Amino acid sequence: MLTFYYDIMSQPSRAIFQFLKANNIVYKDHPVAIRKGEHKSDWYMKINPMGKVPAINDNGFILTESVAILKYLAVRYVVPDHWYPSDPQQRARVDEYMAWQHMNTRFNSAGLFWKEVMIPQMTGKPLDKATLNKAVSELNNTLDMLQTMFLKNQQFLCGDNITIADLLAVNELIQCLSSGRDVTQGRPKLQAWMNRVREKLHPHFDNSVGMIYKLRDMSRRQQARL
Amino acid sequence: MLTFYYDIMSQPSRAIFQFLKANNIVYKDHPVAIRKGEHKSDWYMKINPMGKVPAINDNGFILTESVAILKYLAVRYVVPDHWYPSDPQQRARVDEYMAWQHMNTRFNSAGLFWKEVMIPQMTGKPLDKATLNKAVSELNNTLDMLQTMFLKNQQFLCGDNITIADLLAVNELIQCLSSGRDVTQGRPKLQAWMNRVREKLHPHFDNSVGMIYKLRDMSRRQQARL
Ligand SMILES: N[C@@H](CCC(=O)N[C@@H](CS)C(=O)NCC(=O)O)C(=O)O
Ligand SMILES: N[C@@H](CCC(=O)N[C@@H](CS)C(=O)NCC(=O)O)C(=O)O
Repeated sequence: MLTFYYDIMSQPSRAIFQFLKANNIVYKDHPVAIRKGEHKSDWYMKINPMGKVPAINDNGFILTESVAILKYLAVRYVVPDHWYPSDPQQRARVDEYMAWQHMNTRFNSAGLFWKEVMIPQMTGKPLDKATLNKAVSELNNTLDMLQTMFLKNQQFLCGDNITIADLLAVNELIQCLSSGRDVTQGRPKLQAWMNRVREKLHPHFDNSVGMIYKLRDMSRRQQARL
Repeated sequence: MLTFYYDIMSQPSRAIFQFLKANNIVYKDHPVAIRKGEHKSDWYMKINPMGKVPAINDNGFILTESVAILKYLAVRYVVPDHWYPSDPQQRARVDEYMAWQHMNTRFNSAGLFWKEVMIPQMTGKPLDKATLNKAVSELNNTLDMLQTMFLKNQQFLCGDNITIADLLAVNELIQCLSSGRDVTQGRPKLQAWMNRVREKLHPHFDNSVGMIYKLRDMSRRQQARL
């Protein structure tokens, strides 16, 4: 039996959630609520000593790190080859993005989400302009590279079909929408790609970002009042 | 033909250098001197638009990101299976470490090296105590996890033989020695592991860290004078 530990508000958790759903992989659903501190509870620290989601337990084999989990699932279960191509060069392109994203898409999107949504919520104070501008400009560099180094004239980040790299990327970028910020604005190439990913994942993408849409609407109402 | 672009003072570059040498893979050597800014030159930006080393060109297939390069080489060339095991669960352990290390071993060791060696060199001012203590304490957390989550009672990070994960780890940790700081001090388990890796890579490990030993000796002489 495969058990999946996750919080639906966690970007890498959602990537795996969508992968499992899109491929009809049967699993035992085990939410771990970060807002309740469940990821630092004794029982969960035995699953992942880092106290982070996501994690899986596949018949006693416990694995952490979304990148490793997605690759493992794509090889261990019968899924279409396009998700994680067996051709060494196509596969290397997916590995390249998944290595690159840690300090780029992940670091800069999650960083901005944290600064723009979480810290103000926790402290009751809005973010100062200078910190915000710096975070936005770093994310913009990442968005530029996503377009010029990865997407280029392809349909998806690593070629002309969807891969596990697209799942990781789209979930980081959509997280920024929580503050009302649409990172695809003024970037038609990125927007078209995001729509393609969303379509491929239908209805599992929209089903897993409901909370983000709620936060977006709240933020936009609040901004309209200011 | 395989061309390898690297700077021997770059941690991920050295991991690939040692892998190529240990496996007798024939390649065209192409140093890119960071200290001369060659990694931002027009010709190199065409190889890697991120302007970072390492990179490879395998018969026209250009690949960046050390994690992706090591995996690709381990599959594309004939090397012993232990480097990147074909068994899905053993492989997943290697993938897990290589995903984890970006924000841990890499982030914290390279961060400390930068703060303790590079910035003082560039500004002529030593690091302030508070920043140093914070960086050291973050690295200590990483060292703890290396011992308890990865090494446990194994010979190497991901099992009982050396893998590409060990190469990445050892080269990040040895970089800290440039300031005279031995991260294995007081950590016999980590020290024994490092010695095992060094032996497995003999003489390629010592051949590629000569500059670090020089920096270490300079730092220690300077500290003795203070
Ligand atoms: N590199 C890990 C990152 C995991 C991670 O940072 N998870 C976050 C949620 S998105 C978490 O559990 N944070 C709680 C904490 O760090 O206390 C992966 O890709 O799986
Ligand atoms: N994630 C990359 C990191 C590459 C990287 O940061 N390289 C450094 C040297 S260790 C570099 O080229 N720095 C020059 C710069 O960023 O300007 C990898 O593992 O290959």
